[in-house]
Amino acid sequence: MPEFAAQPVPPMRIAFDAAAATLSPEGPTLTRRMSDLEGLFADHDAWRDAAEGENPVVYSVVSSPVPEEDRELPQSITTIQPGTTGGEFWMTKGHQHPNHQGEIYLGLHGAGGLLMFDGERTEWIDMAPGVIGYIPPGWAHRSVNVGDEPYSFLAVYPGGAGHDYGWVLEHGMGHRVIAGDSGFSLTDYTR
Amino acid sequence: MPEFAAQPVPPMRIAFDAAAATLSPEGPTLTRRMSDLEGLFADHDAWRDAAEGENPVVYSVVSSPVPEEDRELPQSITTIQPGTTGGEFWMTKGHQHPNHQGEIYLGLHGAGGLLMFDGERTEWIDMAPGVIGYIPPGWAHRSVNVGDEPYSFLAVYPGGAGHDYGWVLEHGMGHRVIAGDSGFSLTDYTR
Repeated sequence: MPEFAAQPVPPMRIAFDAAAATLSPEGPTLTRRMSDLEGLFADHDAWRDAAEGENPVVYSVVSSPVPEEDRELPQSITTIQPGTTGGEFWMTKGHQHPNHQGEIYLGLHGAGGLLMFDGERTEWIDMAPGVIGYIPPGWAHRSVNVGDEPYSFLAVYPGGAGHDYGWVLEHGMGHRVIAGDSGFSLTDYTR
Repeated sequence: MPEFAAQPVPPMRIAFDAAAATLSPEGPTLTRRMSDLEGLFADHDAWRDAAEGENPVVYSVVSSPVPEEDRELPQSITTIQPGTTGGEFWMTKGHQHPNHQGEIYLGLHGAGGLLMFDGERTEWIDMAPGVIGYIPPGWAHRSVNVGDEPYSFLAVYPGGAGHDYGWVLEHGMGHRVIAGDSGFSLTDYTR
């Protein structure tokens, strides 16, 4: 039955520890330091001071062994550290899928948010453990840690969707997530 | 920016309760009774007696509101009741994706297994809470409850993958999962 011959990726058993925010076995890990986030915070001077100073790790992404290839369905766990730069909560770079396909995030630990932007409209989903945030095809998305401990979530996404980070640099994300006396607020993205 | 205009499915916040095996809000629910499983158990007489007798619910599938459409990424929770028919553990019908795409299952409750068959090879993954089973494109898949309580799992799958149940009726699943004195065993699928 050659029409159903297996693809190169074998069936896999992956241990998912929601409390520890780990996948085992692991695939590649991506680490984003402040210096990797140029052009994303409104306060460029505050960003540069942080990047040229301690240059902290802002977030990391640990992948499962399922590769980012068309027709596969990889997973990853992102952990965003708590912090602000120029009053703006720490966040992921954000991206658009060049090949428009949906994605889900499942909150695992901490308090975060899922910011989505379709070029005109902004949507925000409060994320917490046990919340699934659904990102429909065509919506750029960014995650934000709005708490004072690490925020972690599991992502499941089609391997052929791709990541376009330039779209966010060009179009923004509609709103910024600003720290206030009692939590956070969303403000217009003035460019 | 019409090239990034939103698709008809909006961003959504879905509450996922792993312990209760629920999604909220819910989409459609599918219920499979014994009478829906014709031709799947080796012991046809035992199947017919059960289907024409109490005709129990063997499994149910509750979906999230994300629709099964191309480019979307729907989710569902399947719960298989414990039981055997002719010595064979209760199971899902099993299917192949006509549009070959990967899928993940996450074990939530109970003791189960993920049986995969690519037309030549059989793979079996022991499923338990916290285990992700990865189904690569091209592998037909069936879930089996091998315990004495309900077995539940979350599925995440591309909305355009489709479900071909006829493939399993035609080709089988390679092996059957048989109850024994100390758990289960896999036996060749004699047709």
